[in-house]
Amino acid sequence: MIKEIQIEQLKGVFSPVITPFNPDLSVDYKKLIHQCEWLISQEVGLAVFGTNSEANSLSVDEKIFLLNKLVEYGIDPNKLMPGTGCCALSDTIKLTKHAVKLGCSGVLMLPPFYYKAVNDDGLLEYFSNVIDSVNDDRLRIYLYHIPPIAMVGISLQLIEKLLKRYPRYVAGIKDSSGDWSNTQNMLDENWDNFSIFAGSESFLLKTMQNGGAGCISATANINPKKIFDVYKYWEKSDSIDMQEELNVLRNIVQSYPLIPALKCIVSHFCEDKNWNILRPPLTGLNVSDSKKLINELNAINFNLIKSN
Amino acid sequence: MIKEIQIEQLKGVFSPVITPFNPDLSVDYKKLIHQCEWLISQEVGLAVFGTNSEANSLSVDEKIFLLNKLVEYGIDPNKLMPGTGCCALSDTIKLTKHAVKLGCSGVLMLPPFYYKAVNDDGLLEYFSNVIDSVNDDRLRIYLYHIPPIAMVGISLQLIEKLLKRYPRYVAGIKDSSGDWSNTQNMLDENWDNFSIFAGSESFLLKTMQNGGAGCISATANINPKKIFDVYKYWEKSDSIDMQEELNVLRNIVQSYPLIPALKCIVSHFCEDKNWNILRPPLTGLNVSDSKKLINELNAINFNLIKSN
Repeated sequence: MIKEIQIEQLKGVFSPVITPFNPDLSVDYKKLIHQCEWLISQEVGLAVFGTNSEANSLSVDEKIFLLNKLVEYGIDPNKLMPGTGCCALSDTIKLTKHAVKLGCSGVLMLPPFYYKAVNDDGLLEYFSNVIDSVNDDRLRIYLYHIPPIAMVGISLQLIEKLLKRYPRYVAGIKDSSGDWSNTQNMLDENWDNFSIFAGSESFLLKTMQNGGAGCISATANINPKKIFDVYKYWEKSDSIDMQEELNVLRNIVQSYPLIPALKCIVSHFCEDKNWNILRPPLTGLNVSDSKKLINELNAINFNLIKSN
Repeated sequence: MIKEIQIEQLKGVFSPVITPFNPDLSVDYKKLIHQCEWLISQEVGLAVFGTNSEANSLSVDEKIFLLNKLVEYGIDPNKLMPGTGCCALSDTIKLTKHAVKLGCSGVLMLPPFYYKAVNDDGLLEYFSNVIDSVNDDRLRIYLYHIPPIAMVGISLQLIEKLLKRYPRYVAGIKDSSGDWSNTQNMLDENWDNFSIFAGSESFLLKTMQNGGAGCISATANINPKKIFDVYKYWEKSDSIDMQEELNVLRNIVQSYPLIPALKCIVSHFCEDKNWNILRPPLTGLNVSDSKKLINELNAINFNLIKSN
């Protein structure tokens, strides 16, 4: 008898959870748990180990350790969509296998990003190899298309081929191309059981209006509730105004390097200087930019209400 | 009493050793040992885990396993300059520490390459953190500048800063920018105890004429002896002709995707079809390109003399 596994397609608002470090650059996992708990309380899912989590500055073993800590603590694995795509096939398999074993409802998977002149056939082989090696019916892959940083992208043709080969395992995509026409093209395909997430809340309303599943956005670390509200109430008449309000904050934050800006904001409003630690090669905002950013946020009456 | 450690500056010809895979995509370490032995017999040093070794498709644990196997087998660690630069600081520290512990005379270190908008200060902190954490007087870092693939490069200003902070540990660079003026600029600096390697044999003669240390070239996997001869006899009158002969072969090979082309050549001349296996996302040459490549090599009477 074939065991039927019911796994829901993910939808909603997810945040690549920013990663707190100790002064010795190890991860402060207790603070990470706290940030995750708070995000869940704000109805935001946990795309831990995203680009804006500095995930590519963490080893696979560190990520496995952190996933274990989150689940041991009691974070619901259904809320977890960890990033598991690494450069090396063997790393991606190991981390993905572990995430599935822990019960994570999906994984967000970068393509292998070191070698640049790769073709769709090579990427198809890569993802096929991951799926065959993980070999678990619970696996749900959300592809991660972020060509401005990974430089290697995921084409519509590749998605078609993957869906044809693995309709059960390839469950969606995060489009961080920053190019709405690409998201629109994917939405127009209307693939079955395929969730399309905007890569930031800037395109959230449009994504929802066109049949998308939500967004996965770094800014959800500081503005979760209002982003969630646009997701939830997109059909209401004032959703355009709500989207516009999101844009105002987003535009301020993304006029700075995003990860340092987010950490600066959390550090300031939580009065915790360690939140301002980044793992090299990334560096924090300088004093003058930090002040400018906080002043701009104060000018729009932004506040981050957290007990941290 | 301070223990004085004598480690020679590396010079000569090194090859990023191509990595042989089994049909199940695991590394065929015995064949790797064989390739390494052969390269040493051709007076070529072993830059295992370079770009053209598909190193970024291998996990840190796989690299540690392979380094152990090579040294256990009896490969002289003095001939080894493994690539140890990963995306994640913690991975780079772990692998570098292991290489130094095994007695490798140098490590070739990519900058962290996922995050693109990094500045020299962040890279300085990254390399400083590696050096401080490895904390071993035997460490010798050869920086790896390959902006066409890593997208993150190593500027002259960064080298200056690193040499000022760590004159003992920062021992040289491989310049794979493909831009001779960059190599020339570095050579003009005439830094003390700093070996400058051309990133391919195309610039070998010029590099030697301008005070460089040699080259680290993927083509040394198939043309080691003649490349070594240009390194050794660059001062002789016929070195220009010898360099020209290298260029003829190099130009043929690099008109194809380099890693698949090298594997195709070794597979053909060693009559070993497994040498043609690449780890995804990379793919082998198609049949038509393979034939065309071998025909072009036959036309210049190329032969790969190997007992394999």
